[in-house]
Amino acid sequence: MRLPPGVNAKDFSDALKQFSEAVGKDWVFTSDEDVNLYRDAYSPFWHEDEDPVPSAAVAPINVEQVQQVVRIANTFKIPIWTISTGKNLGYGGAAPRLSGCMVLDLKRMDKVLEVNEKNAYALVEPGVSYFDLYRYIQDKGLKVWIDTPDPGWGSPIGNSLDRGGGYTPFRDHFDAHCGMEVVLANGEIVRTGMGALPTAKTWQQYRYGFGPYIDGMFSQSNFGVVTKMGFWLLPQPEGYRSGTVSVAKHDDLVPLVDTLSYLMNSSIVQGTTTVGSPLLMSIARSSGMGGAALLTTPKSPSIADLEKIGQEKNLPYWNCELHFYGPSKVVDAQWEYAKEKYSVIPGVTFQDGQSLRFPLSADQIEHVPKRQFGIPNLTVFGMMGRTEGHMWFSPIIPMSGEAVFEAQRVFGQAYADMGVPPAETTFVFPSSFFPRSFVVLCGFPIAHDVEKNRKNRQIFKRLVEVAAQHGWGEYRTHTAFMDTVANVYSYNDHALLHFHETVKDAVDPNGILSPGRCGIWPKHMRKAKA
Amino acid sequence: MRLPPGVNAKDFSDALKQFSEAVGKDWVFTSDEDVNLYRDAYSPFWHEDEDPVPSAAVAPINVEQVQQVVRIANTFKIPIWTISTGKNLGYGGAAPRLSGCMVLDLKRMDKVLEVNEKNAYALVEPGVSYFDLYRYIQDKGLKVWIDTPDPGWGSPIGNSLDRGGGYTPFRDHFDAHCGMEVVLANGEIVRTGMGALPTAKTWQQYRYGFGPYIDGMFSQSNFGVVTKMGFWLLPQPEGYRSGTVSVAKHDDLVPLVDTLSYLMNSSIVQGTTTVGSPLLMSIARSSGMGGAALLTTPKSPSIADLEKIGQEKNLPYWNCELHFYGPSKVVDAQWEYAKEKYSVIPGVTFQDGQSLRFPLSADQIEHVPKRQFGIPNLTVFGMMGRTEGHMWFSPIIPMSGEAVFEAQRVFGQAYADMGVPPAETTFVFPSSFFPRSFVVLCGFPIAHDVEKNRKNRQIFKRLVEVAAQHGWGEYRTHTAFMDTVANVYSYNDHALLHFHETVKDAVDPNGILSPGRCGIWPKHMRKAKA
Repeated sequence: MRLPPGVNAKDFSDALKQFSEAVGKDWVFTSDEDVNLYRDAYSPFWHEDEDPVPSAAVAPINVEQVQQVVRIANTFKIPIWTISTGKNLGYGGAAPRLSGCMVLDLKRMDKVLEVNEKNAYALVEPGVSYFDLYRYIQDKGLKVWIDTPDPGWGSPIGNSLDRGGGYTPFRDHFDAHCGMEVVLANGEIVRTGMGALPTAKTWQQYRYGFGPYIDGMFSQSNFGVVTKMGFWLLPQPEGYRSGTVSVAKHDDLVPLVDTLSYLMNSSIVQGTTTVGSPLLMSIARSSGMGGAALLTTPKSPSIADLEKIGQEKNLPYWNCELHFYGPSKVVDAQWEYAKEKYSVIPGVTFQDGQSLRFPLSADQIEHVPKRQFGIPNLTVFGMMGRTEGHMWFSPIIPMSGEAVFEAQRVFGQAYADMGVPPAETTFVFPSSFFPRSFVVLCGFPIAHDVEKNRKNRQIFKRLVEVAAQHGWGEYRTHTAFMDTVANVYSYNDHALLHFHETVKDAVDPNGILSPGRCGIWPKHMRKAKA
Repeated sequence: MRLPPGVNAKDFSDALKQFSEAVGKDWVFTSDEDVNLYRDAYSPFWHEDEDPVPSAAVAPINVEQVQQVVRIANTFKIPIWTISTGKNLGYGGAAPRLSGCMVLDLKRMDKVLEVNEKNAYALVEPGVSYFDLYRYIQDKGLKVWIDTPDPGWGSPIGNSLDRGGGYTPFRDHFDAHCGMEVVLANGEIVRTGMGALPTAKTWQQYRYGFGPYIDGMFSQSNFGVVTKMGFWLLPQPEGYRSGTVSVAKHDDLVPLVDTLSYLMNSSIVQGTTTVGSPLLMSIARSSGMGGAALLTTPKSPSIADLEKIGQEKNLPYWNCELHFYGPSKVVDAQWEYAKEKYSVIPGVTFQDGQSLRFPLSADQIEHVPKRQFGIPNLTVFGMMGRTEGHMWFSPIIPMSGEAVFEAQRVFGQAYADMGVPPAETTFVFPSSFFPRSFVVLCGFPIAHDVEKNRKNRQIFKRLVEVAAQHGWGEYRTHTAFMDTVANVYSYNDHALLHFHETVKDAVDPNGILSPGRCGIWPKHMRKAKA
């Protein structure tokens, strides 16, 4: 049996006994068969020593058991890596940053504690999945929507703490949360916001409470174990409609995005919009060139050539689909207004999309893009093609056409400088998962091939650095790159990271909670690293 | 000269010399005449020993000077109370919680660093007022709106850190911020969110950055001195319209509020809405009874009587004004839809309000409620009547008619139990300064009368306790009541406050920053208190 770092066999054995007493022996996992389930199914370290393997796992069923587990871990100084459903493939899955950590698996804490239809909120435990919450709401016939990421097997709490995004008006999942319960490293329970009032009536209705608003400290961090969280839901809208805006010229991207930004900042367009290029996608498919290479190698067609091909084949250079949620006459007026605003672009064309009223019939649900309506699903895996896994490089860039051009040029050049074969470069298409900025999602393949993974890791690290040089930073990252990404957020000699470390040492002096998460290490491991 | 607590005359004199070297001697204030300007003009302790008087004040002009000031204060362990414009009358003004603190006055840091029209954001320093920012935008002809509280002489940074509210779609001022620069107690500068990237391009466009999102820690707290902050602005909308919904029966409040909640949670209604009662206001005026007494004393008219008076005098029992911002055809459709939804209430009536297109002419601006359009003003002081000052009791209650009834009953009973004369009790009308919940704003008069103030302070404290027993907590409070309010947020033996204290001791070990703010005291003063 693997031992946790810094823990001897006797202590670990004693601790396991105590964990068993706390949660029942069926819920402490130590066999290779069980423990391997917590490894990263898409690990960029497949077949390498760095592939993180936990020492054991423990799965409490309620907050009292979580308190006991944390207290035992604190006594024996056993590092524990907390997961909720642990399905976050592409960003590290259930595996710890550090081999030998015990996994604190919260999937058995799967109670939907409340869904309030009138004030449109939910209170859940960490093991509740998007599927669970959706089914609960459907079974009770409540007229509220959740927002779901791709895919829907994740946990609203886990995804929100990772600051993930979705597709409907409440798509910024951390921003949509309201109120937390947290078990600290000392085993104490803290409730944030109005939850700090013993008989709180607005825990899920007012975020801040009184005094410092600390919820954000527990996102992308290792300062506590979140055991309950509230979420704001969208009252089921009367209707929905979508519309696609297409433009023919390369430079039309600038007014296309400026208008999108205006419409989003004005709350007229509300869902996630991706700016794509039917023209470039088509050429990439037929030429076998990947996106970045298509735009930046010496063999790239000129802009004039591309525009000509677009004209001949009737393919828009750029397009984007807009989503409107609300009463039918309101969404119709919003789409009309969007078309008016976009009409400043010469040659712009519009295509009406779906127009729906809710609730959808079972048959309709089968034929709509489910994520657009907060319906959890796993179809994204069907779209991935035949890779053995993937991970995401996901920098944030400004919401402007100029920034998209610059990102395409910069990442294209970076691929070229590293000698990446043109076919293996990815497009840089921006999505508005968050208000006011774009996320660029670049998928990286994972293979059961040590050499390929090694090379991809180098490329990944280089892209992080190149992005940072241009003022773009990742909004989250795979556990394998957490130090790399944290390292580029370095203003004033890493003052922000040092602040996090100061807080870490104060609230978790033994450093037992998720060491290394997002680049934050406990004191003794920082020293070891340095 | 008054000395800061725990500092001897020699050290204070040395420190003042160093402060003068840091910021120039003209910007260190020690005379009674100067220092008295930092006292609370609306102090509930007028003419009493507890009225907090600072020892001195220092006004740096840039972040480097702030760093020096903080470092000097840290060396000499001088407690400093940070203010921006210090105009927050009703919640303590410029005065420290603790007599003898030095005031760190940031009003000279008054630069608008950037206003970006395309992405609709601003970056400002703490001394910038709402008036300053508004004028800057008008002078440059930029088509973006700020949101302003009543009144407009405050600081966007100060108000946002106090978690104040306004009237337009970006009325939750803390929620509308994006990115901070903070000077820590050790003098180090931290930039949060994407500002931690040295060449950040999205500091004001993406909130979270990578790792823990710590901005909330610096609101209603004393963990750092915020020296820059970004804010999201509203692109100037094409139009606006309002409409008033009126209902005749007492119990109609329930569907009135439920529908409001649905419309707000659906982003159809976007500004702050207050639910009022023309009927009750009229009776209160003519009977000389204050609001709470009118509803809850044995002499109160019955509901049936009230409804009858309302019918006879054609006065709505309840009403609310809805605000819609956006393209003219969209806001028209939204108001139509709102009327449809409200039509389920028998006898409901509607009155069209103003319908406007922007920009407004200078003449129009003089005749509209400015705050509704983000135009700073001071008219609220004209509305206050002839008091010598005021302070606010401002609990959060659920957004439901039932909760409003309960709050009216509970606070009315509390007034009666304390023997408050009926004429001096206030109404409990709820406002949606924040999404999903109501704030109840009850003004308390301040007088230059020791006995009256003493009595009012007792009533205030009792109301805080009564509110807490019913699960309602204040969203902010006057410095004089910070310990009282912090004390009721007591879940799990004050675990949240103890967490704040742990953080405080770690990030400000000498306890120099704003001791006592929101109930958080440095270690040595906690011990003295206990």
